Amino acid sequence: MNTFGQLLRLTTAGESHGPAITAILDGFPAGITIDFDALQATMDTRRPGQGGATSPRREPDHVELLSGIFDGVSTGSPITISIANTDARSVDYEQFKHIYRPSHADFTYQTKYGIRDYRGGGRASARETALRVAAGALAQMALDQLGIKVFAYTSRIGSVSLDLPLEAIDFEHIYDFPSRCPHADTAARMDEIIQRVRQAGDTVGGIVSGAIAGLPAGLGQPVYHKFHAMLASAMMSINAAKGFEIGMGFEGACRLGSEMNDPFALDANNQITTLTNHSGGVQGGITTGRAVTFRVAFKPVATLAREFKAITDSGQEVTVNGAGRHDVCVVPRAVAVVKAMAALTTLDAILLNKSTHLT
Amino acid sequence: MNTFGQLLRLTTAGESHGPAITAILDGFPAGITIDFDALQATMDTRRPGQGGATSPRREPDHVELLSGIFDGVSTGSPITISIANTDARSVDYEQFKHIYRPSHADFTYQTKYGIRDYRGGGRASARETALRVAAGALAQMALDQLGIKVFAYTSRIGSVSLDLPLEAIDFEHIYDFPSRCPHADTAARMDEIIQRVRQAGDTVGGIVSGAIAGLPAGLGQPVYHKFHAMLASAMMSINAAKGFEIGMGFEGACRLGSEMNDPFALDANNQITTLTNHSGGVQGGITTGRAVTFRVAFKPVATLAREFKAITDSGQEVTVNGAGRHDVCVVPRAVAVVKAMAALTTLDAILLNKSTHLT
Amino acid sequence: MNTFGQLLRLTTAGESHGPAITAILDGFPAGITIDFDALQATMDTRRPGQGGATSPRREPDHVELLSGIFDGVSTGSPITISIANTDARSVDYEQFKHIYRPSHADFTYQTKYGIRDYRGGGRASARETALRVAAGALAQMALDQLGIKVFAYTSRIGSVSLDLPLEAIDFEHIYDFPSRCPHADTAARMDEIIQRVRQAGDTVGGIVSGAIAGLPAGLGQPVYHKFHAMLASAMMSINAAKGFEIGMGFEGACRLGSEMNDPFALDANNQITTLTNHSGGVQGGITTGRAVTFRVAFKPVATLAREFKAITDSGQEVTVNGAGRHDVCVVPRAVAVVKAMAALTTLDAILLNKSTHLT
Amino acid sequence: MNTFGQLLRLTTAGESHGPAITAILDGFPAGITIDFDALQATMDTRRPGQGGATSPRREPDHVELLSGIFDGVSTGSPITISIANTDARSVDYEQFKHIYRPSHADFTYQTKYGIRDYRGGGRASARETALRVAAGALAQMALDQLGIKVFAYTSRIGSVSLDLPLEAIDFEHIYDFPSRCPHADTAARMDEIIQRVRQAGDTVGGIVSGAIAGLPAGLGQPVYHKFHAMLASAMMSINAAKGFEIGMGFEGACRLGSEMNDPFALDANNQITTLTNHSGGVQGGITTGRAVTFRVAFKPVATLAREFKAITDSGQEVTVNGAGRHDVCVVPRAVAVVKAMAALTTLDAILLNKSTHLT
Repeated sequence: MNTFGQLLRLTTAGESHGPAITAILDGFPAGITIDFDALQATMDTRRPGQGGATSPRREPDHVELLSGIFDGVSTGSPITISIANTDARSVDYEQFKHIYRPSHADFTYQTKYGIRDYRGGGRASARETALRVAAGALAQMALDQLGIKVFAYTSRIGSVSLDLPLEAIDFEHIYDFPSRCPHADTAARMDEIIQRVRQAGDTVGGIVSGAIAGLPAGLGQPVYHKFHAMLASAMMSINAAKGFEIGMGFEGACRLGSEMNDPFALDANNQITTLTNHSGGVQGGITTGRAVTFRVAFKPVATLAREFKAITDSGQEVTVNGAGRHDVCVVPRAVAVVKAMAALTTLDAILLNKSTHLT
Repeated sequence: MNTFGQLLRLTTAGESHGPAITAILDGFPAGITIDFDALQATMDTRRPGQGGATSPRREPDHVELLSGIFDGVSTGSPITISIANTDARSVDYEQFKHIYRPSHADFTYQTKYGIRDYRGGGRASARETALRVAAGALAQMALDQLGIKVFAYTSRIGSVSLDLPLEAIDFEHIYDFPSRCPHADTAARMDEIIQRVRQAGDTVGGIVSGAIAGLPAGLGQPVYHKFHAMLASAMMSINAAKGFEIGMGFEGACRLGSEMNDPFALDANNQITTLTNHSGGVQGGITTGRAVTFRVAFKPVATLAREFKAITDSGQEVTVNGAGRHDVCVVPRAVAVVKAMAALTTLDAILLNKSTHLT
Repeated sequence: MNTFGQLLRLTTAGESHGPAITAILDGFPAGITIDFDALQATMDTRRPGQGGATSPRREPDHVELLSGIFDGVSTGSPITISIANTDARSVDYEQFKHIYRPSHADFTYQTKYGIRDYRGGGRASARETALRVAAGALAQMALDQLGIKVFAYTSRIGSVSLDLPLEAIDFEHIYDFPSRCPHADTAARMDEIIQRVRQAGDTVGGIVSGAIAGLPAGLGQPVYHKFHAMLASAMMSINAAKGFEIGMGFEGACRLGSEMNDPFALDANNQITTLTNHSGGVQGGITTGRAVTFRVAFKPVATLAREFKAITDSGQEVTVNGAGRHDVCVVPRAVAVVKAMAALTTLDAILLNKSTHLT
Repeated sequence: MNTFGQLLRLTTAGESHGPAITAILDGFPAGITIDFDALQATMDTRRPGQGGATSPRREPDHVELLSGIFDGVSTGSPITISIANTDARSVDYEQFKHIYRPSHADFTYQTKYGIRDYRGGGRASARETALRVAAGALAQMALDQLGIKVFAYTSRIGSVSLDLPLEAIDFEHIYDFPSRCPHADTAARMDEIIQRVRQAGDTVGGIVSGAIAGLPAGLGQPVYHKFHAMLASAMMSINAAKGFEIGMGFEGACRLGSEMNDPFALDANNQITTLTNHSGGVQGGITTGRAVTFRVAFKPVATLAREFKAITDSGQEVTVNGAGRHDVCVVPRAVAVVKAMAALTTLDAILLNKSTHLT
């Protein structure tokens, strides 16, 4: 079950401390020119070690594409994505062999499988998301040809949040800010929070907001594969994600219908559109042509940079010192992953939608 | 794409105003005794026309099981679920042939397919969820044998919310309240809100909370089919659902790691458990053995019981009078659907988990 | 696992002696006009009781389409196919409750599920194939719009075979012959065989040949979903099918490469084609544009119209008298099923192929 | 669509002349000890360059397992299989850039995708089957724990065939013979044929027979995923495969029911079994507990070791000299691939069958 998608299928494998992590991206359309520089630049947006929020582990995350591309163009055959694990120091983790850290996957993996690779989280590590970012970058190259853009940014860290309408967001400069919050004042306050939390040896959660713009109306499959159901599944599969909402989401649940409905109107080209977009670009599970807007909640990182209590597999309480290479806040790095998963979901929906009509 | 699930697969078909709606539930385990009375009783929990919140349309929703059961026991063959549409007055809807109502699926279906059954929402109607409730009732019969219980209740309507810990919820009496809120004072305030909104010809949204108790640790498939990713997909496929969260969800996103971690402890049987359950019963996508707790946000019903503006397929603004048989608030009826989707997701996860080991 | 296909998905349910058999055909393209008369006429090509080969059970097989069609046109929503079981006399089968008939599914179903519907074969009955024929008729209506025709005919019964090149087959008159062999002399010899076998209380096997003409080049998905791999899976899922071959199949396995290669040439429109079609219209798993030709072997019906030995579930040998309503030879009726499965496979491949390119 | 299997899923990627070929085997059960020597030994059974039948290209096919295994034991996480392409001389193939060779995939791939990797067959190359053999070897390690053995051998090359009952086959020594025919006299005659065909610059086809022994009764999923339907799909996905049959297959199609039925009897342990096994170990799509026996037909290799006619993409006839590194007969190497696909199919069926019952 390590595969995501229906026609565009991403299958990933690999643990954080094995020789490499590997993905096969199947169903990618033929004839797309691959921009290798853009791919590597996208990888760098997920890199740890940028700013204060993230872990000092510095992997280059050099992506190799081993198949499916010929003379720089996709052939329609599956694309193999390989990223070597160059900075894996397994020795750090030997002490965790018999230890279950709280709010990690140690206990659940061991219970499920009867065995686990305890080095650095093994298969449960967020290292896996590097492959998603690479695959998402490829998906975006296809979406570019259709004028579809996917955006994501940090809209909350701890108590600091950014509440701007989509139109007011400066999407060009998201990656100029270590926090990935594209609003200088808010970003500064987020940086402060992160510094404070870091000094306390603690961690903090946050929210990533996303938008998919330039979508045609008609994407998404009723009933069980509604556009936002596929998106929710994509987002909730990201490590540490605990919530998903589309449009006005939970806030809209407290509102009246008369406030929430999106009235129709004609646009400059006399095409039907909506005046507002409370629905987040989807009605009945199918895109309206307005931007799809959504938010993903991330819990704080479970590994604290201080001593904390854990339990051994024989039930003894022990103390673990988490000081090391962990992120204080996963949200800035998650921005790239949210963006990638949205791009993959969108391209898959586009390919699926092609079978709606015979000709 | 009208199928939900991996090994337990629910495929549904039918429109709100056709002769019947039909589902095939495939992969249901053999040897489960079917309690037909319990099935029909569960159907009644979803019935409209109960209390003030829901539509006066009163379908009996008599369920027929046409296959897969022999001498009252499941045979492992697919179960056909058929529910006749007895109260469909198509004449009501002829006026909508060329009209797109705001925040309905009229426009998006027409754009996607080039044709739509405009009678009563057609395929986009929440009528489809009756089949989910029937299938969920069957799934619950299997879960009963494992001691697994699924609960759902209304935790918010408009501005009124119920914030009780899981332990304090009286799950026995949820269906005694038209609002499906199992707390008399809060339920009374919800009833008031619904009356007020009804009188205003308006509608209102809300939140359904759910819990799955008695789960073993180890359910869920990393990476893309995490237990809560499957649950999110299930919930976001319900009509009008706009948000999903597990455990502390969006609120937890604003917290510190030191507050959120769930410390391990030993239970009365010396088995490893957690003292708190902020994670909502899942770590690394796999169940911990604690209850899975989640919330689903529903937007207000789009059809107002008053005149509202719509647009024709040729771009003319028109006025529609929605006074009729629509719900003021979908949440009380959605409780049964949330419960059903949780039961289906859980049983599917249990069946999938059986392939983890060879013997 | 009662679903066939990738994007065009046929899910069937129902036993031979339940109230009805039901299918949901999902992924059928929107906008196809449904010819109800053609549908019913196709059903009649599978009817038993025609000619001497088949069982005297005479079901009308009246097909009801309960969803997915509006004003006679497909809407893109799933199509429910329902066929009532009108001629089911369960009393005939009570005697088989504890008996395993040789070369039937009695023993294997009981072993797998621990329970079985022993009336008339239950889920294992060829009654299920009526739904395939109905779904295939719908698929053919879509294929008609693309100029694609699917043919099938009886090419062997017992020792009598028809060995004509595709061009020499009179496809117009296949259904004029009870044996479904479109060559008068051969058909007469097949009828003789069937009479002789019937009089002996025995049964006999045979071969159905099929052809899919008018296909574009490029259908089929390497590597695991080659066009002929999907076709093989489709055909081998038919009751009593024991072999499949494409092009020259097993005979070609004994030949030299210099005999078997299909030389290229230009057709009348200066398009590349092949002079011969030994490959059966597929190279590397992808259609060449030439007709796909294939053959399916069917074993003799296991129920003999005489006394035969069986065993009880407690291991006692018993004698059963099979005189009743069984076919002497399944092949004439299987022709319609082979044709239907080929139509479904082809339409699915066409829909899948649409995702090869982005635009 | 480069994935095979339902719960045990093999996804492969890579072209014959890229840097490596890669597979991800997902769903492999946890806790299986991996025998790396047995894996490499199995790879060697597929190696070209053994005996006279196969191509002189000598790849070591050194398999690397990059994930999913910890301390020599499977963890339940996906297993990455990587095999470097060490002997790829792309320069040989530049001449084929604009040329379609008869009965190759050149034309169909180019037509489907609008682009192709023309070096050595690209994605259509049988090089991909090395990954299947590796994955099949892993599957066999799991099957070994259940006492299930998969066998395959060459039963026909050109006009020479081996017709022995299963019991008379010496499965221990199959790989002692370059032809993979475990009968010394027949093997010698096959070697002669291959020499003669080689000297003529021609190629020849053949048949691989397979058997799966030690299976429990009850495997396989009715209706569309019958055990032999899954097996047929697996086998027909192998390069050059043109036919599949189970049990008596095409020959049985010409027989009487009274000859073909498999009478029941009790075995030494008083368990129900069958006296004969004409059905090939399957009834109603479900295994009987007797060995599953099947045959796969392979066409002759299309590349002749002499001059042959081809066509350019602009329609010009050209002459190509195929003298090079191609197999005279693919059958001896296909034996390992047939065996691997049978092992994968069987393990998948076993995992699927675990969901038949709840407990």
